[in-house]
Amino acid sequence: MRYYAKPLNRLIGEMSKLPGIGGKTAQRLAFHILSMEDKEAFALAEAIQDAKRSMRYCSVCGNLTESDPCSICSDETRDRSVICVVENARDVVSMEKIREYKGQYHVLHGAISPMDGIGPEDINLKSLITRLQDERVKELILATNPTIEGEATAMYIARLIKPSGIRVTRIAHGVPVGGDLEYADEVTLLKAMEGRREL
Amino acid sequence: MRYYAKPLNRLIGEMSKLPGIGGKTAQRLAFHILSMEDKEAFALAEAIQDAKRSMRYCSVCGNLTESDPCSICSDETRDRSVICVVENARDVVSMEKIREYKGQYHVLHGAISPMDGIGPEDINLKSLITRLQDERVKELILATNPTIEGEATAMYIARLIKPSGIRVTRIAHGVPVGGDLEYADEVTLLKAMEGRREL
Repeated sequence: MRYYAKPLNRLIGEMSKLPGIGGKTAQRLAFHILSMEDKEAFALAEAIQDAKRSMRYCSVCGNLTESDPCSICSDETRDRSVICVVENARDVVSMEKIREYKGQYHVLHGAISPMDGIGPEDINLKSLITRLQDERVKELILATNPTIEGEATAMYIARLIKPSGIRVTRIAHGVPVGGDLEYADEVTLLKAMEGRREL
Repeated sequence: MRYYAKPLNRLIGEMSKLPGIGGKTAQRLAFHILSMEDKEAFALAEAIQDAKRSMRYCSVCGNLTESDPCSICSDETRDRSVICVVENARDVVSMEKIREYKGQYHVLHGAISPMDGIGPEDINLKSLITRLQDERVKELILATNPTIEGEATAMYIARLIKPSGIRVTRIAHGVPVGGDLEYADEVTLLKAMEGRREL
């Protein structure tokens, strides 16, 4: 016997394609959507369609945007001498939340990962090279994730760009603020020791 | 500064209204939806709209259905002498999955909870009383959740129905199969002892 009616089954199927949403969660969400007010459920569906229709990638930096170039790239008050390189558009939001960085961004949409068959030509790197021909750019901050792939990507970009004379920096690795030394892993602690600064 | 463009912000807002989806998860899901193929993202939106448009509650048992009465209520091969009372439509699916029960269902859409201001008149109980006037009904199985609200609801229904001479039963509480006595709570163990059966 089929446990669910077809439309419900379809909804569960579509929900379970989302990351971190397993079968049970998809079922719970689908039943919840059916129990929602019509207006609310349709608002969700329309939000998906609207976001999908109106959001695109900025042709300059690769960030998600409604208008091209994005609000950061077109903001004349922002510093054009620094470009912060991140793996994905979510990282731009994280960086913006510190309210300290006022430079530009460049979103790679991934990281170099030979194991997964992702090489330098598979990420948004070519347009970064083009951007660096702008003489105003003095520093490139590599803020890829502190993972094997992120490190490899940072190393690759550093080696590629350094000969051009642009300053290439990497964000600091260490014990997170509010963290506990006891629970920090060895590699993080090693990085924290290596990166120690005089007070 | 606004961190997200408006359509993205709206999508995150709508996603975070779903149960168990907090701000961070909503953000992750929204970014994922934007990175999905157009076709897939629109399929998700359409699945929500389609499910919401075509699914309704069965006028007999209150289960979710495409056609009214639902496939279980209109299935002539199913036993009409037993009605299993559950709190919500998901529970019907759970029951059907055991492939053993062949009777009818009645979905309450909630449980009596004076703390939340939910009384007997706020759940789908009136139509159950009407159904019991069918003389074929011999037994009512109370399969509400083993929570305070579920137990209270079961007690209430039992007291209400018993005088009519219909057999009223409650599903067994005890140690779950595959579970470990060591991790069972005292109340469950007590119920398991109380409900012991001769071998």
